[in-house]
Amino acid sequence: MTRIIVLRLGHRRERDKRISTHVGLVARAFGADEIVYSGEHDQKLLDSVNKVALEWGGSFKASYDPDWRKRIKEFKGTKVHLTMYGIPFQQKIKELKTSESLLVIVGGEKVPSEVYELADYNLAVTNQPHSEVAALGVFLHEYGNMKQFTGARKKVVPSARGKKIVEKKH
Amino acid sequence: MTRIIVLRLGHRRERDKRISTHVGLVARAFGADEIVYSGEHDQKLLDSVNKVALEWGGSFKASYDPDWRKRIKEFKGTKVHLTMYGIPFQQKIKELKTSESLLVIVGGEKVPSEVYELADYNLAVTNQPHSEVAALGVFLHEYGNMKQFTGARKKVVPSARGKKIVEKKH
Repeated sequence: MTRIIVLRLGHRRERDKRISTHVGLVARAFGADEIVYSGEHDQKLLDSVNKVALEWGGSFKASYDPDWRKRIKEFKGTKVHLTMYGIPFQQKIKELKTSESLLVIVGGEKVPSEVYELADYNLAVTNQPHSEVAALGVFLHEYGNMKQFTGARKKVVPSARGKKIVEKKH
Repeated sequence: MTRIIVLRLGHRRERDKRISTHVGLVARAFGADEIVYSGEHDQKLLDSVNKVALEWGGSFKASYDPDWRKRIKEFKGTKVHLTMYGIPFQQKIKELKTSESLLVIVGGEKVPSEVYELADYNLAVTNQPHSEVAALGVFLHEYGNMKQFTGARKKVVPSARGKKIVEKKH
């Protein structure tokens, strides 16, 4: 298993609250270990992602770090920046699977050009404009680092119709 | 090629504007032909998705239909509802590829239970809580209906560093 940390750049409390929440939940659902938010500090965002992680199991954590530059520079492992301007991620994903630690950087609308230099790879999940949420989802899905989510309080029982959830009482 | 229409349920102008925009752009980038929004009418949302489609090529269209029930009932083709409560999409995606027309239904937070009955398949992209944006992206990515986006005014030239765009002047 690769240790995967997602770094979400440039969060804005008002404008990005839902998108950033989705980025965090996608990181967790598709096998990342951690999400680090940069930009504006947003305790409600951290709490809501951490609450889902607690209820639905596993050891995923959301935290905040204002110093994204240092975070990227000092990261020991492979640094991937997801951007529509990059080369197709399919060209590199196989070699990335040998990494012990992976930092996956996802931006908002304005990513500082420095990020393109600090990253080891600038990779595109299609070269069309769409969504950092979907780019992260598709990238991690293809990476295949799926987790078991042990200790969950809530668990879905997959069904052809309707909703089935098992809840463990504490 | 399959004709793919994405139906986005329950749009709320204020709360969902960015998520619904991302859903539309993801639909386009990963090979759908059309997105239909239900819930509240939001001309700005339609305009912004259609503007991207115009600039970046292809024939993708966003439109509004308040009557999602009729839209689902009268759709001629296979109806797939993406939900975390469903069965793993991987179990069905191969047989879906033989469909001529596909309606992919994505909800917001509260999906009427009727939708689970009207759909031919309720499929989960993981059974964890995450994002309809990523669920749609991963599903369509695996479906593999990729388009060429002819007639684009803007086009990315994939690069290892930085941003390259070719613009066609009119």
